[in-house]
Amino acid sequence: MSKFIIGVDIGGTKIAAGITNAAGKIKKKVIIPTLAKDGFDASLGQVFTAIRILLSGGVINKNIKGIGLCAPGPLDPLKGIVHNPPNLPGWRDVDLVSRIKRKFKMNAKLENDANAAAIAEMVWGSAKGHRNIFYTTVSTGIGTGIIIDGRIYHGKNGMAGEGGHMTINYDDTGTVCGCGNTGCVEVLASGTYTENRIKKKLRGSRDIKTLLRAMCGGDIDKITMRTVARAARKKDPFALESIKEEGRVLGVWLGSMISILDPEIIVIGGGVSMMGELILREIRRAAYAHTINIFASKTPIVRAKLKKDVGILGAASLFMA
Amino acid sequence: MSKFIIGVDIGGTKIAAGITNAAGKIKKKVIIPTLAKDGFDASLGQVFTAIRILLSGGVINKNIKGIGLCAPGPLDPLKGIVHNPPNLPGWRDVDLVSRIKRKFKMNAKLENDANAAAIAEMVWGSAKGHRNIFYTTVSTGIGTGIIIDGRIYHGKNGMAGEGGHMTINYDDTGTVCGCGNTGCVEVLASGTYTENRIKKKLRGSRDIKTLLRAMCGGDIDKITMRTVARAARKKDPFALESIKEEGRVLGVWLGSMISILDPEIIVIGGGVSMMGELILREIRRAAYAHTINIFASKTPIVRAKLKKDVGILGAASLFMA
Repeated sequence: MSKFIIGVDIGGTKIAAGITNAAGKIKKKVIIPTLAKDGFDASLGQVFTAIRILLSGGVINKNIKGIGLCAPGPLDPLKGIVHNPPNLPGWRDVDLVSRIKRKFKMNAKLENDANAAAIAEMVWGSAKGHRNIFYTTVSTGIGTGIIIDGRIYHGKNGMAGEGGHMTINYDDTGTVCGCGNTGCVEVLASGTYTENRIKKKLRGSRDIKTLLRAMCGGDIDKITMRTVARAARKKDPFALESIKEEGRVLGVWLGSMISILDPEIIVIGGGVSMMGELILREIRRAAYAHTINIFASKTPIVRAKLKKDVGILGAASLFMA
Repeated sequence: MSKFIIGVDIGGTKIAAGITNAAGKIKKKVIIPTLAKDGFDASLGQVFTAIRILLSGGVINKNIKGIGLCAPGPLDPLKGIVHNPPNLPGWRDVDLVSRIKRKFKMNAKLENDANAAAIAEMVWGSAKGHRNIFYTTVSTGIGTGIIIDGRIYHGKNGMAGEGGHMTINYDDTGTVCGCGNTGCVEVLASGTYTENRIKKKLRGSRDIKTLLRAMCGGDIDKITMRTVARAARKKDPFALESIKEEGRVLGVWLGSMISILDPEIIVIGGGVSMMGELILREIRRAAYAHTINIFASKTPIVRAKLKKDVGILGAASLFMA
């Protein structure tokens, strides 16, 4: 009986891996550095090491249903190939799934992290009971995953669901996004970009009165979205306005997603979701206003349930959907 | 043997209905006024009349596979209900499919016109051989249809695929779209809106030198996108620039659709597609540039094959997919 699943979350900085049961409870966990800068052999070696550590000490292999892997895109989940993630230098069209299967004589599956997190939310999180889900994680960047009839929608090349790079302001001439364009929702509303815009505003004008200046001890560089959220909870007008604006932009974008996908539920994860209702009510307001879908307001827009272990659980959930 | 299908295209002005064979060849056709202004009973009566005319004169009912219907949205294709199309006054949650089935003792199906046209393009048109398609018709408005695995993607409430009302410029404060918002692709790039913007520019500035002034005999009201296309073919810089701008906006939007849907092919129908390569090359350029999908340039963006009878064929194709 295969009661356990291994989930491996390969990030640019660290690899987090764990053994979970079918209820999504993590029984054993290991976090090691990716050693991405040391190149492909080193970082792939670390993936193997993480799995080896989990399998050491009495785990019986036949009890393991498989090894779920998630990595940053672009990757091909259908073929199990990691193309060339910017934060994994040296990785180029790596047939990760085959390599893992060969090495550990177990089944393996690969997804990009946002898709994996979407499945984990369906299986164990806020979208439990739903089969048509739009998931987005808003933090440094904006990742998205589309679930249709209980399965990730992959598109022709396994590249579908890259909603963070949809253009929501084609006239924007500001910051260039990592994807090379301006006007993507990622560059206009992700946590990092919002944070940067706030810092720029504060540096640009001494006239802006806000608690943030005191909260960061005068060092604007130290401001994060957490600081902004704390100031907003203290009713600081500048912080409230900044969050409202980010919520509005995210909401307009999600309204478009309702127009095009008409999902059962929208789940928001990542750092930004930690602000809870502070930003969610703005997101909902804008989303329900910026869609032609007459049933839009019946589409719940909720916070993700899974938090720090979402990477491991996302990877493991690939064997649950 | 059911060799034929009835297709009925219910528009705000006219009802076009026809009998087609499995090859999409129209054997008999009828076009009558909708009488929309006379209210629900009158216009529903006209739908019945159109079908009755087709069935008169020797058609044997058992040779008919079913009656496909398309109408403007919002409607529920899953339940066969027409909600409340702005151009069919008096229609409110009409269970059209049940009424047609009862009346004619035949099977019936309902779709919105863009979805139906998408299927027709898959079955008989430019998307033949493909199963994952993004279709858009750009003329007065912008309609879209998403086909996944050979079937229309409907979403939770049957409202999915309303891509024309996605926000592509959330800061836009110009013309308000029929949907109540600003910044939708429909209001920024449909044929009608582009036409209106061109007229406004020409009225606003006598300094714009363009063949269009002569071509419309000085009556700017008479300018249509056809006039603009003709001027562009004569290398008129203003006309070329106007088409280029419309193409750019449509392309940016379609780039987002590639990011989110990763379709096998994109098919463009409606009046704007009649301009052919004049606008298509601009659309492609912008679409392939404004997406994160690394395979985007392998996604063909082509003109629809079906033209004036696309309404009838779209409705009929519901029994072919």
